[in-house]
Formats: sequence, structure tokens, C-alpha cells
Amino acid sequence: MSASSLKTSAGNFFEDFRLGQQIRHATPRTVTVGDVAVYNGLFGPRFAVQSADAFARSIGYPRAPVDDLLVFHVVFGKTVPDVSLNAVANLGYADCRFLKAVYPGDTLNAVSEVIGLKENSNKKTGIVYVRSRGFDQDGGLVLDYARWVMVRKRDEKAEPPGDKVPELPKAVEPSQLGAACPAIDAKAYDTVLSGSPHRFGDYKAGEKIDHLVGVTVEDAEHMIATRLYQNTARIHFDHFTESKGRFGKRLIYGGHAISLARALSFNGLGNAFHVAAINGGRHVSPLFAGLTVFAWSEVLAVADVPGRNDVGALRLRTIATKDRPCADFPLKGGDDYDAAVILDLDYWVLMPK
Amino acid sequence: MSASSLKTSAGNFFEDFRLGQQIRHATPRTVTVGDVAVYNGLFGPRFAVQSADAFARSIGYPRAPVDDLLVFHVVFGKTVPDVSLNAVANLGYADCRFLKAVYPGDTLNAVSEVIGLKENSNKKTGIVYVRSRGFDQDGGLVLDYARWVMVRKRDEKAEPPGDKVPELPKAVEPSQLGAACPAIDAKAYDTVLSGSPHRFGDYKAGEKIDHLVGVTVEDAEHMIATRLYQNTARIHFDHFTESKGRFGKRLIYGGHAISLARALSFNGLGNAFHVAAINGGRHVSPLFAGLTVFAWSEVLAVADVPGRNDVGALRLRTIATKDRPCADFPLKGGDDYDAAVILDLDYWVLMPK
Amino acid sequence: MSASSLKTSAGNFFEDFRLGQQIRHATPRTVTVGDVAVYNGLFGPRFAVQSADAFARSIGYPRAPVDDLLVFHVVFGKTVPDVSLNAVANLGYADCRFLKAVYPGDTLNAVSEVIGLKENSNKKTGIVYVRSRGFDQDGGLVLDYARWVMVRKRDEKAEPPGDKVPELPKAVEPSQLGAACPAIDAKAYDTVLSGSPHRFGDYKAGEKIDHLVGVTVEDAEHMIATRLYQNTARIHFDHFTESKGRFGKRLIYGGHAISLARALSFNGLGNAFHVAAINGGRHVSPLFAGLTVFAWSEVLAVADVPGRNDVGALRLRTIATKDRPCADFPLKGGDDYDAAVILDLDYWVLMPK
Repeated sequence: MSASSLKTSAGNFFEDFRLGQQIRHATPRTVTVGDVAVYNGLFGPRFAVQSADAFARSIGYPRAPVDDLLVFHVVFGKTVPDVSLNAVANLGYADCRFLKAVYPGDTLNAVSEVIGLKENSNKKTGIVYVRSRGFDQDGGLVLDYARWVMVRKRDEKAEPPGDKVPELPKAVEPSQLGAACPAIDAKAYDTVLSGSPHRFGDYKAGEKIDHLVGVTVEDAEHMIATRLYQNTARIHFDHFTESKGRFGKRLIYGGHAISLARALSFNGLGNAFHVAAINGGRHVSPLFAGLTVFAWSEVLAVADVPGRNDVGALRLRTIATKDRPCADFPLKGGDDYDAAVILDLDYWVLMPK
Repeated sequence: MSASSLKTSAGNFFEDFRLGQQIRHATPRTVTVGDVAVYNGLFGPRFAVQSADAFARSIGYPRAPVDDLLVFHVVFGKTVPDVSLNAVANLGYADCRFLKAVYPGDTLNAVSEVIGLKENSNKKTGIVYVRSRGFDQDGGLVLDYARWVMVRKRDEKAEPPGDKVPELPKAVEPSQLGAACPAIDAKAYDTVLSGSPHRFGDYKAGEKIDHLVGVTVEDAEHMIATRLYQNTARIHFDHFTESKGRFGKRLIYGGHAISLARALSFNGLGNAFHVAAINGGRHVSPLFAGLTVFAWSEVLAVADVPGRNDVGALRLRTIATKDRPCADFPLKGGDDYDAAVILDLDYWVLMPK
Repeated sequence: MSASSLKTSAGNFFEDFRLGQQIRHATPRTVTVGDVAVYNGLFGPRFAVQSADAFARSIGYPRAPVDDLLVFHVVFGKTVPDVSLNAVANLGYADCRFLKAVYPGDTLNAVSEVIGLKENSNKKTGIVYVRSRGFDQDGGLVLDYARWVMVRKRDEKAEPPGDKVPELPKAVEPSQLGAACPAIDAKAYDTVLSGSPHRFGDYKAGEKIDHLVGVTVEDAEHMIATRLYQNTARIHFDHFTESKGRFGKRLIYGGHAISLARALSFNGLGNAFHVAAINGGRHVSPLFAGLTVFAWSEVLAVADVPGRNDVGALRLRTIATKDRPCADFPLKGGDDYDAAVILDLDYWVLMPK
């Protein structure tokens, strides 16, 4: 082994993890109005609270907060070099809660704990469960989520480093929502300026919404986004290697589809101004440049947030597809998903009452 | 009709408009140094006043103002969901005046009034004339312009909602220019730093300038720009649908060509630091990714601005072309425009005396 | 000659330069957190000092400084319209020193002096040597470097404007390093947060490091970057003209490869937080969109910085390649470079002790 290989990191393999292991991640990152602008250029979100300081102040925020998903991607990105550089697949998320609003100028960093390890029967890979937490410069916890990924073993003969599948909640309880949302003045929330007349009370469980519009993804766009988050998973960036790999091309970071779907969901959910929690999410099939993403949502539940009269919560299931409009709410095809489905996301949003 | 269709917006059709109707548009938008940077990366403008706080201060601005066209695109973008989501064609602009300088941190919003309606003889479409106004967070009017678009009818049998073609000025009067430009210290304006020795007095009506350089447009670029403005016209974004549509591909937002031409015009008009008004503009033919934009300008008139000794106004006609250098000032071809022409823009700029 | 050609600039030709000539360049440019974000999206650097205000403060900076190479590109960009618009080739850099930290909000401008002129034997071109200096709004010298380019003559019969090849140092002396780096608290430098445990003392001359990862470049990306720097060299932007030119396509700005290689070098050189000087650099072969860039580095020397106990200097040679992983440290092929090599860069970085 040359001297050089001692200095570079090829990431952790399955047998490198330990139950209870704490990982402080590099690299701290100050999120600025610049990052917000790049994010806006890439996704085009239109939720008024994040779009305008004046609107945010009118309802009680000190200024426009940073988009929740941008916070998620930045925290997630930090975990990649340590957790998922050798991942075969990003299997799922659970119990993801946004706990403190992030404003431009805040510096984020992240810590993960290994909460589960399970070798696969082929002995070539194992599943790593981590709980990752994002903090701001004051040590405030801004984000907390569990994630599990299938990671390669370096050495197939290595002993499994642990054997535990953690219990994770199917959904975040409504009582846990809203920590990142200050008390707002719901009467001052101007639904003309926000672009939708529909408040919390206008939505009912079972309601389905086609978000109508499609957006095509370019390689430059998803690479700019993913680098903005300092996410280093090479499968997103290296055409030379991937052209000979599994897909024959660069794979788009799964979070890109989440942000696209969230931006598209404005049409029908324009006042869902805050993603308060993600109950679970699955990247059903891969997304590549040149494909067009559409989305639809179902309201799974409506819930009061205990102690809050200003906002209510909608539990949403948002389905994103590729090259497939969603007027007929595509989901299943035979026993499995419709082949066009790329994302199945279950999450809570807050809406003004 | 499903519940969902009550929550999403497919935009207004011709018969939905009313003469005198006032439309307050979503979404308020704080314009930041981040937006300025993304804009600079996409267009590469080099006008010193907008490029450098230090230069702007040296002549009397409190800091570098936001590029006039970025202000225009942001205000324009707000009007799209209400006015032109079902537009067949963006027909023209008139009487566009920049009335107050916008600085990073300002929040813009927009209001439109329907000032004209005219059904077309085919009864399938009609022309909607609006006067749109952009305001800052203090209620200051920053931009005021008229625009007309051809909009589809939802129902061909619907009665026309009005029948009026408004009178609009052919050009903004010089006395109306300069409201967005503070009194400047023209002697302090450093023409070495600004990149051009030519001041107001050096230009003459009839002078033609080839801006020499071409710039190719990529899909990622025009989509990032158009999303930055929160312009939601789907024809710019959805390759899946447009590949089966009128052009077989995504159409680039007409304003993209305006910004490209303005940036190119620096070569020859380097001290035209402020777009004070747009008299009229026509998107002569469509622009698509992969094509290279060139531009040339003619000085239509030179004018003093009443009450101002610091700046003078040039009325310019800037022609942009695709895949066609402009050394011979291409314009007409037979009875119509040369096939390469994409933009014919008539506007006023201010220059230091 | 028409009036227009008097106003536009086609750049200087070889015979336009004079020995000792001082050129004050347009356009001053305020570098903001927006520019930093666009740069981060395009290159994905992860050096903690530039990434996070909180980290920078923890070791003694007032806030996160602007990436050294972004400063370089902005200053370099200003020189292009005057120095290299008619360049056939960008031949080299020498004696490049970063002299003062740049922070968001600083305004940069640039001045060049012609320090050498040498006509080529074909009489069609000549080599122009300039010393370029970047200043901030307070007149502080932030960057100083020599560069030489081969420039076309307008008229082959023109007399050569001078005949002098300047003496330039092969490398910057360690005593000249560190002016742009405040005294840091090396103990407070957290190597977990920074992403690498290796400090200055862990590196030895002769050590080679493969940076492992590749990144593919898209046309949208390099054009956005190059416009961000207001670099106007048309060969980077105009596909229409270049499709009929030397390469059949747009050439990527050489500095793009430098920034890509620097970002890739994080893997193995994670604490090389400051580029203090560039001793020399050669763009060995052209880079085009669609190609994937890899990189490796050799430590040429380790050096104390006189008077500094907080940081030490590594002299690095970083080689970047196209479509060629660097596990075997590709460099030579026959008498010349390996055909995959695009960049050979010799520079000094600072690392905490």
C-alpha cells in the first residue's frame, strides 16, 4: 500500500461500522443567501415564507428561513463521506424531524450514531442504520433523522460488525411537529400573496392532487445541486466511470427528486409552507438527466398540532414520476410500483389555520 | 371534477379576464446578492455600477443596485401564473419604466390591471392587455409596464369578456426617464474602470454597433434563470411534453434573449449603465438551447433628460440573432425579419455626461 | 470603417503592447456570498475554513474568506479583455502570490504591467508577459502574478513592439508565503470537522496522492463559472463559431481545471486550507464538456514559513487528467506528457501545524 492511500479516504465499508459508534462529520457549512439563490434557480420553489423576508416577517418569522429541504440536503451531504460512500442503495428514511428554523448565516454541522447493522445473506453487503443530527453554530439541534443504506463489505470474509435492526416509528406524531416553526399570525398570512386560497381547514384525508406540471432535469443542474450540499457520492458526478457501470450513466441524487416534487407540489399545496417531518421515503427507481419529473400527492391525514392554534398539519404522500404525467395518479403496476414512479415520500407539512 | 382540480391552478383563459380587473400576484420575492450572483453567472453583465459596490458609491449610489433586467424578470415572473400560463404567444411590451432602484434585500411583489381585451377572429384565442406594476417592501413603485399576450379560450363558445384595445405610447418620453437613477457625480464616473471611454456625448442617432461576440445557450442555463424569476410557464421546462408539441423541444423564455443581448451590448455601450425604459419589444422568432446568440444595436435617438445634467439618454434598438453574427447588421429579409432575428427591442438607457 | 467599430473593442494585438505599459482593467467586482455559493455549486470545495464562518472564526479569521482560486479567477477575468482576447494560447503563470485575504463584500479590481514582449519567428504572433495585480476597495494588494500568453498580430508586417523576456522565479520563496493568512490557532483547528487528520507534519516530500474521484464537466457549468468571473474570452462561449474552429467545439477556460483539481485534492489534502502561491502552471492539453476530470498530487517539498509556528507550507504538483483515473499517477508519455494530462500545476498550500 502506498503512502498516498493512507491519506485519502475511500469511505467506510460495512465491517468498519460499530453499533453505538458516534461519527462527527466534516465539513461545517455556512448557509447563505447565495445558497438559497442557487437552490431557487435549480428548483424554483414558490412558498412565500421562504421566498420573501417581508412575507416571513408579516407572520412572525424574524426573516425568511432557509428552505427545509436545503437544510436536509446540507446535513445529509455531510454524512455521505462517512456513511454512504460505498452504498449500493439508499434504502430509506424515518423519523425525520425539523427542529429549529435555519436562517442565512447559520453554520450547520452533523453527527451520526450507528443504531443498527444487519449483514445480508449474500455476505457481500450489509445494512447500516444511522441516526443523523444536524446542529447550528450554537449547538441547536435543527434536524434529526434515521436513515438506512446498503453498504458493500470490503472483505466478504469479514465478520459482521453487529446484528441489530432498530425499531423506528412508522410516522412522526403530531405532537412532535412545529418546533422549527415560530408561532405565526395566521390572520396576517396573506393567501393572495402566497398564491393559494386554501388553508389547513380546506384539506381532507383522501384528497388527491395532481401537481400538473413537469420539469426536465439536466446533468449540470443535479451536479450543481449535489455539490452545493457537498455531497460527494461519485455516482452523481463521474460519467467516465458510470458509463461503464450499472446504469451506463450518472445517477441523480435521490434528494434531487424530493426537492423537485416539493417545488411542483406548490400547485395545489401553496400554503404548505413548512416541511415539519418526513415519516418515510423510498427512491423507487433511478432518475437520470433528460427525464421529466411530474408529481401528485395524497392527503393521508389532517391533524391538529397539540398546543398550536396557528397551524395545522397535513400528512402527505407525494409520488414523483419520470416522463409520466400524473393526472391519473400513477402508483402501482402489478404487484409493484408503476415503472414510472421514482419517489414515494410520506411527510408532514404545516399550513396556516 | 375531482377534489384535486379545485386546488390546483391551470391558469386563466381568455374568458376569465375582465376589463379593469386588478390582480395581486403571488409570490413576494426578496432579491439578494445570491440572485445577483446567479444572474451574473448566467449572463455575465459587466456594467460597473451593478458589478461593484465601490464603483456605485463613487458616483452616488448607496451601493450597487440590482440589474434592471433582473428586476424586470422577477416582476414579470410573478404575473405569469395569473396572466400568461395559457398564452400562445407573448406579443409585446410597451411603456415600461424603471422607477426606483432596487437593492439586494428588497422584496418585490406585483399587481396587474387588465387594460384591454380583444377576441381573435378565430374565436379560439384573444389578446389580453395588462398593465403590471412591481413594488418593493415599502410600497414603492419600482417598475410599471404594459404587456399583451395571446391567450387561449377554455371554451370556444364563451362570450368575449370585453372588447377594447388600449392606447399605448410608442415610446416613453425623456421626461419620464431617470426616476430609478439617483443624481450621479458624472466626473467621478471612471471610464477606465467602467471599460469604455465613450460617454453620452459620443453617440449619435443613426450609429450602428455590432456587439461582436456570440454566446451559446444551454437548457440548464435558461431553466435556472427562469426558475430564479419564479416564472412558471411550463413550455420552458417540460421536455417530455414539448417534445411532442409545437417546437419539438423546450422554448426559451423570451426575457432570456433580452438579458443576453443586454450583456453582449456592453461591447460598444459599456457606459449605458441603466436601462431606464423599454419602449417596445418583439420576440420575433423562438430561441432554443444549443443556438448561439449575437446582437447589434442602433442608436435611434439621443436625448437630454429634463432636469438632469449628470446623465443623458440613448434610445436604442437592439437586434438579437441566432447562429448569425451581426457584422452586417441583419434585420430584414424580404418583407419580414431576417430568419435569424429573434429579438427586436426598443429601449432607453442612461449614460453619464 | 464604420462609426461602430470605434466603440467596440476587439482586444489588443501583439503590436499594440509596449514594454512598461500600465493597464488599469475594467470591471470592478464586488465578490459576495452569492458568488461563493455559485462557485461552491460548480466545484464543490470542502475546505472547512472557506466553507464555514464558525470554523474560520474558531481558528482566528474574522469570518470565512473567499476561496483563493475564486479571487484568482475574478482578477484574471478582468485582464482578459485587455491582455488575452486575441490569445492563441495561455502559456504560463509564475510568481503568483496571494497577499491579503478577501472576504464577501470586498470589491476587486486589477492592474497589469507589460513586463516582456517577444515576437515569434513566424512573425504572426508574439508572446506578451504581464504582471497582474488585484486590489481590494481599500487599495490593498490581494494578488500578484506574472503570466505570459501568445497573442496574434493584427498586421504581420508590424514592427515588434519590444524584445524582452523577463526573468521570473521558478518558485515563490517560503518567506513570501502566508501574507493572506492571519495567525491561526492551530490547536483550535478541529481535524474531525475539517475532514482529515493529517497536519503539516504528516506530509513528506516525494509523497504521491491519488485524489480518487472524477467529475464530468458540462457546457452550462464552465460557461456559468467563466461568466461569473467576467472572463470574456469568446472561445469558451460561442459554439457557432467554434464548431468551425480549431477544436470544433467550445474550449473550457483553463482555470476551470485548476478549480476542479483543487476541489478533488481535498481527498488527501483536506487541511491544505489556503493556496498561498502558484509557482507555475501549464495547461497541457485542452478540456471540453463531456469529459471527466481526475487528479493526483505529489508533494514536491515541505517548508516552514519563516516567522510562523502556526502553519507550514507544502509545495505541491497537481496533475489533472481527462477520462483517465490517476491510480498510477499518469504524467509522461514518451518524450512528452501522457495524452490524458490537461494540467500541470506547481503551487504552495498552507497547512496547520
